[in-house]
Parts: sequence; structure tokens; C-alpha cells
Amino acid sequence: MNHSTLFEGYKAAKHKHSGHQEREVSILKQAFENMEGDLEADLYGKGPSIRTFEQKMAAYLGKESAVFFPSGTMAQQIALRIWSDEKGINKVAYHPLSHLELHEEDAIKELHQLEPVLLAEKNRLIGLEDIVNLEEDISCLLLELPQREIGGQLPSYETLINLSDYCRDYGIRLHLDGARLLEVLPYYEKTAAEICSLFDSVYLSFYKGIGGIAGAILAGSESFTEKSKVWKRRHGGDLISLYPYFLSADYYFEMRKNKMTEYYHHAKELAELYNQCHAVRTMPAEPVTNMFHVHFDMSREELEPLLLEIYEAADLGFTGYLAETADGAPYYEVSIGDAYEQLPKDVLKKAFQMLDEKMKAIDVSRQN
Amino acid sequence: MNHSTLFEGYKAAKHKHSGHQEREVSILKQAFENMEGDLEADLYGKGPSIRTFEQKMAAYLGKESAVFFPSGTMAQQIALRIWSDEKGINKVAYHPLSHLELHEEDAIKELHQLEPVLLAEKNRLIGLEDIVNLEEDISCLLLELPQREIGGQLPSYETLINLSDYCRDYGIRLHLDGARLLEVLPYYEKTAAEICSLFDSVYLSFYKGIGGIAGAILAGSESFTEKSKVWKRRHGGDLISLYPYFLSADYYFEMRKNKMTEYYHHAKELAELYNQCHAVRTMPAEPVTNMFHVHFDMSREELEPLLLEIYEAADLGFTGYLAETADGAPYYEVSIGDAYEQLPKDVLKKAFQMLDEKMKAIDVSRQN
Repeated sequence: MNHSTLFEGYKAAKHKHSGHQEREVSILKQAFENMEGDLEADLYGKGPSIRTFEQKMAAYLGKESAVFFPSGTMAQQIALRIWSDEKGINKVAYHPLSHLELHEEDAIKELHQLEPVLLAEKNRLIGLEDIVNLEEDISCLLLELPQREIGGQLPSYETLINLSDYCRDYGIRLHLDGARLLEVLPYYEKTAAEICSLFDSVYLSFYKGIGGIAGAILAGSESFTEKSKVWKRRHGGDLISLYPYFLSADYYFEMRKNKMTEYYHHAKELAELYNQCHAVRTMPAEPVTNMFHVHFDMSREELEPLLLEIYEAADLGFTGYLAETADGAPYYEVSIGDAYEQLPKDVLKKAFQMLDEKMKAIDVSRQN
Repeated sequence: MNHSTLFEGYKAAKHKHSGHQEREVSILKQAFENMEGDLEADLYGKGPSIRTFEQKMAAYLGKESAVFFPSGTMAQQIALRIWSDEKGINKVAYHPLSHLELHEEDAIKELHQLEPVLLAEKNRLIGLEDIVNLEEDISCLLLELPQREIGGQLPSYETLINLSDYCRDYGIRLHLDGARLLEVLPYYEKTAAEICSLFDSVYLSFYKGIGGIAGAILAGSESFTEKSKVWKRRHGGDLISLYPYFLSADYYFEMRKNKMTEYYHHAKELAELYNQCHAVRTMPAEPVTNMFHVHFDMSREELEPLLLEIYEAADLGFTGYLAETADGAPYYEVSIGDAYEQLPKDVLKKAFQMLDEKMKAIDVSRQN
């Protein structure tokens, strides 16, 4: 069988090394299978079920209060708007590869009239010197842990503390883009509450490592979350009922909150397999979370057919898409979840033997 | 058993005359019970399941294209923003009791920098003269069919045509707040597509008469809906997966789209029962959709205990809340759905006999 595209070849492979399970309706059905049908729906952000979940997440994050949002895009814009209104400063700082800069169609400008100040270069993390050397006044600094678009890198815990101290001293609000907050805990060896105590506001996503359907939590002080509810209504995010998301979020949070260490170790193991292959390297070289990027010294045109051959021969899919670096070199993201542990070791071994051999063969054919 | 509040008394009553069923998790479970688990999730607004549903709704509404939104609040702001950007005019016109004016925390101003121009008085519908006499330039007129906050009133079809013609002649975009669009079709004796042909853009809700969980459709030309997708992303409404809402919306749409005439007739029947009671009247006197308001010549303090007695004695709840007119007189909204047909006639008869008697008794005691 020949697959015309990488995506189709990836989908056709029986095994995957990334993620949890396919994104399909069974994720919803499983979460609700044992839920009582007469459980009352939440009504415009109110009701026992949503209150209980929000209080539980506030406690987990060590914050006074938490609000469930349909999306992180909405939650984070709102956090930055609240802090900017509070300070009367319309500038907010974040990394040039943050979600707000790449994936939100300039909403922060178009909807909130805020001006982003991009800190650090694209290929490295924000450090204390970036904020110390800043000449403009900003209301808020947004830090993304881990920095997804550069393979999920993390600053040292000491840097986090220094950044937090500096922001407090200079009246700058510090917001955590913690879409993958649980995924960073094993590396720091801290609780979520310990990490969050360094930040004024925190966002957490339920469909990354946790593997829910959609949705996010925004947490902070009571006065902050009360304001966020007004903005949630303005954004059109205060749906009559959000229970399909937060009840499933809760289900998968309970299922996976204690599996992050396992995912982290598996990511390190898998990255090592990649790094042992000729002309392949991971970013970071040793993962600090459950994720990393895989880079190849090869063009997309050379790589695609090679990957497709492996997918078919080993029945294992690595990725369905290839991104490109600024230099045009192909790479992709790997995020470890439940799929990795279900992967037969001989399948994995075969696939990586093939990858190594094929990378070498291409190098040899180039030299001839 | 004594119920301390009207809401508790209402909930405790076995029968209701309004709505479909309780808002509870069973609504989700029922919709997904026979759905295949391996049905692929939509991914950021893409995929076969969401495309199929959007195309079906576009065809039903007679529009080129349709986009599913998590909420009408989001969809309508975006429609007004697109039309305002297109015209380079930041004023939009709507009724003083429109959803945008009452329930969205001034989002249209705070998020979109648009200025509302309120047309007509609170207690009547917008007519052609309101728009003809307007001195300001507006980009768009939003019409709500039916006008919910005054009992679900409707303009004549002729007035609709006149408004539509006028807007086209003067380059004003006409947007339909059709949250309850299906509910108006029996009165006009028109198809949804016929009504929608009078408008440039249309919003439809799935949790009013249709009885879904949440969600909305925004429809119009292809170029309009393409722009709306960019704004949907900006608002944080482009969730990774919206299938819990649009799949259940589709399920309940199919179940109830042909029941609106029945609901309309039941509303007229029930309004007659109310109007036969002493010192009770409905607005409108004869409903034109499945909804109406019930007004009482009595204070809230007198009315509440009277209603609670009826709820307990007849085991039928009328309402869980009382709103107040500008004069402080109590009223409530009735929306007919599936509950009405399941209501035993003797229960209904007993409750309305009691209502009539008790209203008379209070009047007599006042005169003594």
C-alpha cells in the first residue's frame, strides 16, 4: 500500500509513539460512560459541578480562585487585559514564539488594543537580563513553561525565582502560560502550587498532557478571577453549559495527573533512540518534559519518503506533519502520552534501526 | 413540605409547562448514545463532521456558507464587527432590549469599539420609521426575531420586507438575531431560507427551541464567514474540538425542527388558559411563537406564596423566577417545548382553576 501523504501514512500506521489515543468521539463517551444522567448542568458558569471543579483546581494550583474557560486563547488574553487595565499600561511582554504571537491572529491588538513587547530571540528562553534591560514600561510578563515552539525548553528554577522576584519588585505582573504545567513538574521536582506561587495568574490546558477534549483553567486572586468572568462573558465564552468540557477535563485530570513523571522518562528514552540515529538530533538534546523536537540534516523531499517507508514497514508512525526551521530544514514535535507505553518494544526497535540505516544510506549516496 | 424560594418550589414540582427536559448530563448522554466512538473529532474548525454540519445548516438557512460557534454572543459581535469594518462605520443599530445591550457586559464597546444606536422604545418593536428617521450613519441593523424581552413579539412579514429593502437601498447591512429563528417560521408560514434571504447575515442558537447543550451557527456569504473564522480564533472560540456541541446540536435539530408548529399551538392554548384567569394577562395576548410573558396585577410579595401553593397542590411548576417590569410588577417568561405535551390535562386544569380562584380571592381581600 502506498500512501500519498505523510499524514495518511501516519494515520494508517497501527502504532504511534506520541500522544494518548486518536482524537475521536470515544474520548467523550469514555468520560461520560459512568456519569449519572441526572447530574445538573452548569448554568452560565454557576452550579455545583463547575464550582466544585474550579475550587479543586484552585487548590491544586495553590491559588485563591479559578475559573474554567472554553479555551486558553480566551483565558490568556483576558489575563493580560486585566493586568494592563489595572496598571494603565497597554504593553505586555512575551516570547516571540508564544501562542499569542503565532496562533491568535493578533487578537491581543485587534480585540484588546494591547501592544506586545517580544523578549529574547526566537531560539532561546527569556532570561532575567531580557526583562532587566527592557526600556519600555510593561504591565505584565507572560512566561510559557515549557517553551513549546523550541522543543519544550525550561529555564532553571533559580531563573524562575529571579524573574518572579524582579517582577514583584518592579510592579510587573507575572502570568504563567502553563498549558503544559503538569508536564514540567517532574523536572523541577515541585508541586503545581509551588510553581504557581511565583506567578500572579496561571493558565492550564486540559487537552495537552492531560488529554481532555478542550478547555482551560485561569487561576489567581478572587478579585482577578471575578474580573475574568466579566471578560469571559464579553468574549462569548460564558456558555450556558460548559460541562461537556470540564467534566471530561476532570476525568482525564484524575486519570493522568500522576503519570507525568512516566511520560517524562519515556520522552528521555525516546529522544535517546532518535539521537543514536545518524544525522538526527533532538531539541532539547535531553528532554526536560514529555516533549521534544526532532531535527534532521536532510531536506523535506528526502525525508518524507524515508519516513513513509518506515511507517509501512514497522507499522509505527512518528509524525503526520513536518514543520520547517528558518533555514528550511524539516523537524517535528513529539509529545509523550499513553501511546508510548502500549508500543511493542520490537516495533520501536525495528523502526529506529530502519531510521538509522536509511539516514546513513542517504548520506552515502550524497557522497558518491 | 414548605419551599423557601420559588426556585426550589419550581424544581420540586413533578410537572412543568415550559421547556423540554431538565438541563442535565442526560442531554449529552442521549445525543451520543448511538454515536460511533471512532467518529473523528473536528480539529480547530476543520474535519468532515463539522464541515458536513455547517454545510447542512448553510443549505437550511439558504446561505452560501455557515460556521459553528460556541456561543451566539461571540457570533453576533463578530458579525457586527465585520460589517462595521467593511463600511468603515463604527455604529450599529439594535433594539434597547437586545441581548447585546442587556447580557454582554458592553462587549461591543469594550472589545470591538463599536457604538450602539438604540432603535425604538423598550416596549415596542423596531419599525421602518425608526430606521428612516435615523440621523446617524450605521453600518448594520440587527433585528431580533422574535423580540424576546417583550414576550417574543414579531413584526409583520411586510415590515420585514420593507426593512430589508430599505437597508439594501441605503447600503446598511441587515443582521438577523435568529436565536429563535425556527420558532418564528409557523407564524410567518415561511421557510428558514425565505426569512434569511432578507438578511445579509444570520445567527441561530441550538439551545432554545431546539434544546441542544450550547452553540450557534453564523451564516452568510463565503467571504463573510471566512472573515468570521479569523475573528472566532481571536475571540478564543476556535476550540481544538467543538463536537460535544455541534453533534448534539445536530441530534436535537433533527429531533425538533419539525415540532415548532406544535409548540406554537401549545403556546396559544396555554396563553388562553392564563388569560382566562382573573388579573392575569399574557404578552403578547395571543402568542406568535412558542413563547410569551405572563403579567400579574399584583406585587411580587403577594404572588410568590400564591404560586408556591399551586406548585405544591397541583405538582405543576410555572416558573422558578419572577422578573419585574419598570413599574415593579412581576412577570415571567414561558417557552413551550416537549414538556407541555407530556403534561396530564387534569394537572393543568387543577393548577389554572387554583390560579384563577386565588387571584380573585386576593382581589376580594384587598377590597375589604
